[in-house]
Amino acid sequence: MAEKVVDLAERLSLFSDLWSPKVVARMNDYEIKVVKVQGEFVWHAHDDTDELFLVVDGELTVQLRDGDVTLGPGQLYVVPRGVEHCPVADGEVHALLIEPVGVVNTGDAGGPLTAGPDDSLT
Amino acid sequence: MAEKVVDLAERLSLFSDLWSPKVVARMNDYEIKVVKVQGEFVWHAHDDTDELFLVVDGELTVQLRDGDVTLGPGQLYVVPRGVEHCPVADGEVHALLIEPVGVVNTGDAGGPLTAGPDDSLT
Repeated sequence: MAEKVVDLAERLSLFSDLWSPKVVARMNDYEIKVVKVQGEFVWHAHDDTDELFLVVDGELTVQLRDGDVTLGPGQLYVVPRGVEHCPVADGEVHALLIEPVGVVNTGDAGGPLTAGPDDSLT
Repeated sequence: MAEKVVDLAERLSLFSDLWSPKVVARMNDYEIKVVKVQGEFVWHAHDDTDELFLVVDGELTVQLRDGDVTLGPGQLYVVPRGVEHCPVADGEVHALLIEPVGVVNTGDAGGPLTAGPDDSLT
């Protein structure tokens, strides 16, 4: 069963592209993903689901229309469904995301930062 | 919004009881919990749901009928639904759990280690 253990730092060492979440595990109909981000994403919302961010390394700010949330390593935040948000990071951030299978990273915004649905490191 | 940030180490500093998960956040119909464990739990299964373990501190072994899984800090494992498992730890372990609202920690086993459903640090 050892191959089913997910070492977050090890999985994060396997890629370098930004804003492109990689699936590392699945729990029921949810995917556990790791992602590297730097710079500013796009403002978007997920109308049908909450979204969990847990920072592994670096400092991530989740901009919200009514105030920002800043997360360091070991800190998590759940963006409620329907709430517009825009992640931004001065330095590179490594994070874990959890959301239902099939959620598009750019939500209702679309655009060039939209990631394919099939990136997987499982 | 800063009050919605969950610092895992800070939440874990607020209690000392073992095998008693505390809810720290909610994502859709799932609860994010932190827990301290040491010693051996009970063999049990959750017939209707997978269960995610992410170790924050210490070393946790998830005993399975077909082989053990050992997790250190930053490592996660998803126990598939219906799979009998029994966590055990020589030293104290701090971990994050994710499972649907209402899941009982001892699954189909019950017994004295069964935690109440309402412990919350949110």
